[in-house]
Amino acid sequence: MIMHNMYGVTMTIKVAIAGASGYAGGEILRLLLGHPAYASGELEIGALTAASTAGSTLGELMPHIPQLADRVIQDTTAETLAGHDVVFLGLPHGFSAEIALQLGPDVTVIDCAADFRLQNAANWEKFYGSEHQETWPYGIPEMPGHREALRGAKRVAVPGCFPTGATLALLPAVQAGLIEPDVSVVSITGVSGAGKKASVALLGSETMGSLKAYNTSGKHRHTPEIAQNLGEVSDKPVKVSFTPVLAPLPRGILTTATAPLKEGVTAEQARAVYEEFYAQETFVHVLPEGAQPQTQAVLGSNMCHVQVEIDEEAGKVLVTSAIDNLTKGTAGAAVQCMNLSVGFDEAAGLPQVGVAP
Amino acid sequence: MIMHNMYGVTMTIKVAIAGASGYAGGEILRLLLGHPAYASGELEIGALTAASTAGSTLGELMPHIPQLADRVIQDTTAETLAGHDVVFLGLPHGFSAEIALQLGPDVTVIDCAADFRLQNAANWEKFYGSEHQETWPYGIPEMPGHREALRGAKRVAVPGCFPTGATLALLPAVQAGLIEPDVSVVSITGVSGAGKKASVALLGSETMGSLKAYNTSGKHRHTPEIAQNLGEVSDKPVKVSFTPVLAPLPRGILTTATAPLKEGVTAEQARAVYEEFYAQETFVHVLPEGAQPQTQAVLGSNMCHVQVEIDEEAGKVLVTSAIDNLTKGTAGAAVQCMNLSVGFDEAAGLPQVGVAP
Amino acid sequence: MIMHNMYGVTMTIKVAIAGASGYAGGEILRLLLGHPAYASGELEIGALTAASTAGSTLGELMPHIPQLADRVIQDTTAETLAGHDVVFLGLPHGFSAEIALQLGPDVTVIDCAADFRLQNAANWEKFYGSEHQETWPYGIPEMPGHREALRGAKRVAVPGCFPTGATLALLPAVQAGLIEPDVSVVSITGVSGAGKKASVALLGSETMGSLKAYNTSGKHRHTPEIAQNLGEVSDKPVKVSFTPVLAPLPRGILTTATAPLKEGVTAEQARAVYEEFYAQETFVHVLPEGAQPQTQAVLGSNMCHVQVEIDEEAGKVLVTSAIDNLTKGTAGAAVQCMNLSVGFDEAAGLPQVGVAP
Amino acid sequence: MIMHNMYGVTMTIKVAIAGASGYAGGEILRLLLGHPAYASGELEIGALTAASTAGSTLGELMPHIPQLADRVIQDTTAETLAGHDVVFLGLPHGFSAEIALQLGPDVTVIDCAADFRLQNAANWEKFYGSEHQETWPYGIPEMPGHREALRGAKRVAVPGCFPTGATLALLPAVQAGLIEPDVSVVSITGVSGAGKKASVALLGSETMGSLKAYNTSGKHRHTPEIAQNLGEVSDKPVKVSFTPVLAPLPRGILTTATAPLKEGVTAEQARAVYEEFYAQETFVHVLPEGAQPQTQAVLGSNMCHVQVEIDEEAGKVLVTSAIDNLTKGTAGAAVQCMNLSVGFDEAAGLPQVGVAP
Repeated sequence: MIMHNMYGVTMTIKVAIAGASGYAGGEILRLLLGHPAYASGELEIGALTAASTAGSTLGELMPHIPQLADRVIQDTTAETLAGHDVVFLGLPHGFSAEIALQLGPDVTVIDCAADFRLQNAANWEKFYGSEHQETWPYGIPEMPGHREALRGAKRVAVPGCFPTGATLALLPAVQAGLIEPDVSVVSITGVSGAGKKASVALLGSETMGSLKAYNTSGKHRHTPEIAQNLGEVSDKPVKVSFTPVLAPLPRGILTTATAPLKEGVTAEQARAVYEEFYAQETFVHVLPEGAQPQTQAVLGSNMCHVQVEIDEEAGKVLVTSAIDNLTKGTAGAAVQCMNLSVGFDEAAGLPQVGVAP
Repeated sequence: MIMHNMYGVTMTIKVAIAGASGYAGGEILRLLLGHPAYASGELEIGALTAASTAGSTLGELMPHIPQLADRVIQDTTAETLAGHDVVFLGLPHGFSAEIALQLGPDVTVIDCAADFRLQNAANWEKFYGSEHQETWPYGIPEMPGHREALRGAKRVAVPGCFPTGATLALLPAVQAGLIEPDVSVVSITGVSGAGKKASVALLGSETMGSLKAYNTSGKHRHTPEIAQNLGEVSDKPVKVSFTPVLAPLPRGILTTATAPLKEGVTAEQARAVYEEFYAQETFVHVLPEGAQPQTQAVLGSNMCHVQVEIDEEAGKVLVTSAIDNLTKGTAGAAVQCMNLSVGFDEAAGLPQVGVAP
Repeated sequence: MIMHNMYGVTMTIKVAIAGASGYAGGEILRLLLGHPAYASGELEIGALTAASTAGSTLGELMPHIPQLADRVIQDTTAETLAGHDVVFLGLPHGFSAEIALQLGPDVTVIDCAADFRLQNAANWEKFYGSEHQETWPYGIPEMPGHREALRGAKRVAVPGCFPTGATLALLPAVQAGLIEPDVSVVSITGVSGAGKKASVALLGSETMGSLKAYNTSGKHRHTPEIAQNLGEVSDKPVKVSFTPVLAPLPRGILTTATAPLKEGVTAEQARAVYEEFYAQETFVHVLPEGAQPQTQAVLGSNMCHVQVEIDEEAGKVLVTSAIDNLTKGTAGAAVQCMNLSVGFDEAAGLPQVGVAP
Repeated sequence: MIMHNMYGVTMTIKVAIAGASGYAGGEILRLLLGHPAYASGELEIGALTAASTAGSTLGELMPHIPQLADRVIQDTTAETLAGHDVVFLGLPHGFSAEIALQLGPDVTVIDCAADFRLQNAANWEKFYGSEHQETWPYGIPEMPGHREALRGAKRVAVPGCFPTGATLALLPAVQAGLIEPDVSVVSITGVSGAGKKASVALLGSETMGSLKAYNTSGKHRHTPEIAQNLGEVSDKPVKVSFTPVLAPLPRGILTTATAPLKEGVTAEQARAVYEEFYAQETFVHVLPEGAQPQTQAVLGSNMCHVQVEIDEEAGKVLVTSAIDNLTKGTAGAAVQCMNLSVGFDEAAGLPQVGVAP
């Protein structure tokens, strides 16, 4: 497969990854090394940078990427990142904005941190405790109007992993008015969502064999992001109760969302809404009636599996979705957005098949 | 510790376990072997029966119980179970009722199946597809009025594991009117809840590394049981949306429950309600503010850890609870009920400390 | 990347998979759908067959492969498999041979079962209890002479997963005479190695949180296969003590092998032997000094990571290797052999990067 | 059960735990709270100390121990530990010795660190890099002569977890001369063995779904301890190749050990040796022929399950054992030694039943 940019011209794109030794960075690398543009020479992997691990080889830090084992991690500075066509940022928020704002306007900057996701400055300040900077095109191409905004965009805010799972689950129901705008979302996540940072609470001993909710009752920073996304397709604000739960698996988010059923809505209507909403989407799969999403089926893939059901007795719509938090939830979305930005095929390099079992 | 019955007389109680090679049966055995009445000779372990495994030794089936390795599993019949003071039934529903109804009125029968839990015959028929038999005293001593009914009871219906977690989480909120009677319950469970039965869907390969909802939207048989329990302390029927999720751990249920907050209720009031409700309970621990229950902390113990919080923004109360599905969720409750039935100390033989990490 | 056969001619190859609903079959499908020849239309996926699941759709059985969700599984017969250029067999041994021997001589048959692996008929009869049929070219291209035999081969016996890990670990040491021919191999495996078959012993409840050796002391059928492989590069027979251990992860085999160190051999010599032996191999990565293989690093990839060390005090060589039992251990090897058979690039469609963490 | 000391006198013993917020300390607490002497008032839990967590409550650090949730952790100093009859030390080596040597001669000091285990000062210096202090009675009562030495002992060195599993597996074979003194030990361990210390390599993300050997080829500090133990029953030094492997489970060690079979030894002889050696032991269970130890069966118990087999073809004896690294491997052994030291029943408070599944 020969790749061309949106003007039909073959090109070579040089890509840098800041935060290359973190989980998001490693997953971006995995996807780029399997990207057809890498195979054809149209995409070149340039600087790999990090903070505390600078000076180490990638082989020491990421033994799963043997091809680049000898690459040396550089310091994350605007200088090391200069001279690239695309820069992925897999950095802590705050630092990410600091670096991002130093990069030239011609560079495609794809930011996996939270800095540029929220539209409402007050929300930013409330949840992140610092001054709001900018709002960038938001990287869920499956949201109405977003794909168009992402095509050719030089700045992209990659969504949070929980907002991706919750948004793709609820968007059709909210837009079509199947539900009252009052959702209860419980999202169960694998531990890689918490990043690669030494911590007693995230030790294998503490997380294997245990389930625990955290940052509950509106305290999780992804709460306003979910509300913002759903609000885009709703004429009323959407109330969001969000409960994240940590579960003993490395990757995967299963989202369950319930909301009051609008009177008169039937299961057939609900299913039809979902099937139509996602009919043209490569990376959202509405499961057949009776099947429930499972995270294993999307491991390492860029897919979101979705199911919608109606619970007449309880008067609720239940929507469930499964994604891999590191792929569709972060790095896959980042690569999908890069594809849209530079003019590759949107789906290039992004697996649809999960690594199951 | 010397044990006496309710009249102060030392006694020897002979116990049989039907379904001894299943997970409930094995856990009852584990608890009885650690019971002070077993150590003192006041409790004796009699017949151990099963269906397909009859004729095998316990050592072959349950290598974790070396003391009884040479015991031979007998057939589950009313005859083998005759002559015991207490009979625990860890059998499939239907068969459990069939056996139970053949046991004499003087025997304490503690049934871990569903047959005698529901009060409403129509609900039984709808969810279980057979004729309803009887309703027995229901084994959650922490529910108002239940401890009294269980003392000396000769028939006990041990609750389902999900209803235990959901009921202990929601009871105080419903009774005190902190919430509207419209709850969304998501309960995440370890795989032992599905029992010890060959099945492709429950293979290690299929369950490790995966999360999946099942029997959703009111289809799970524990749904009416939760509604029944909450209804006991409510003047209105309680609507229950129930979503069970299978997670990759052997034991443990984490329940998250949200419901609309009654106007004017504060976090302090909610906390006070919970602390007062459970002030005298040995096996329910209301966690301090800011702490969330985790299943690891209750592994192998008879505890239920509970937290209550208010999400002002979303207008919801969030209650979470953690139990071990095989202990407080099944076998621990069964032994607690036996203690109440025969007059032992209610807490005898029931660990409060979890096996963590 | 445009693919050509060994004569430089573009071609379309039609592939069938027998046993498509099993783990080997599913993994072959995953790899083929990511194969560049599939993308370019040179490889077409034909019949998917199975036994007990015939009539179901792939979507019901393998939700991780959404692209082919509507494909209906056919019965495994020589007739349904006729008319294909390549037939992968992911069937139980015995049945595999029965089907294989009915397929025409022009078809490339790649058999993942054991039937055609052993050269010694007596060993076959001892370990498999039936009459030996044939010996086919054995699918470890990294073994001396094997790559050449596999190029253009119409019949391939894909190796067992344990023999792959043990052989790649020990081959250089045996060939170079670093060790005495008396090896102790302990191979720790994820549960998918046991296949997708209902079984109590393989339930999630029984396998999560547990470690257990099985088929020990020469009873495992992979023992003679390991001895055969090592014998190919040794002038003396190689004694093999083989201990497989089941561990709580879905995929991966970590092999540890010790053998008496030949007098005078140094760590530098041992390292040099390994680096030279595998210098030209795409799918074997000798780790740098001090690093140990980990299964996570090869999850879903076709890689084998290897380390060799000398324990002077104990007088032993220790070799360790990590593979994914379903990829390099089965389906990856099968696709690698297909590539060699039909003239594709040997590495086409086979990831080098693991899905970590 | 009323407890008496070795002179038949009822007593109250006050116990302190240093390192109470670590995994060893937590497990000692769990066992003491279930000890009959605690129930009867003969054993009292005094100071709980730690280093970095001093000032926190036990409830914050160890939510699995709700009974003592309000206890405040004190600093680990000789002063806080003074005035107790028994002091358990669950501290890093070095610091453990420093504290231990300040405690009075009448106090029973039970040290879970390595400081006082090795008899050979040169080995200590080689493996631990500091000056050797003392050698204390070594806490495996099942080793010939050790039970007698531990009775009434005021100083006890609790063995390492790997040495416990390997020693109990190999002791009878070495003593009876079933094998040549040249053993290859592979011990697969759950992650709690690495302690409760923030670390990237031990994060859930890094350890779930992965297997990895570490400190291989004689580098692990438990190697000389294993050799020392086996040497006690051998007239020749025993060569030990030791390979520890980290596996994705919280607790448990499965040890596999192979050694050259002495000519003429039969499987029946080997079995008879093991059965006789352990005939009187409460906490070692020789499994029936054909059964293999599994870690699940000993979870949370003080048992060691053992199997011995002969592999004629390979000319090897294979011995396997399963323990819980935190119970029989550390805290259970510590409590068993306390029982022997103060004159309680040796088995008091130590479960024989595992928490399975």
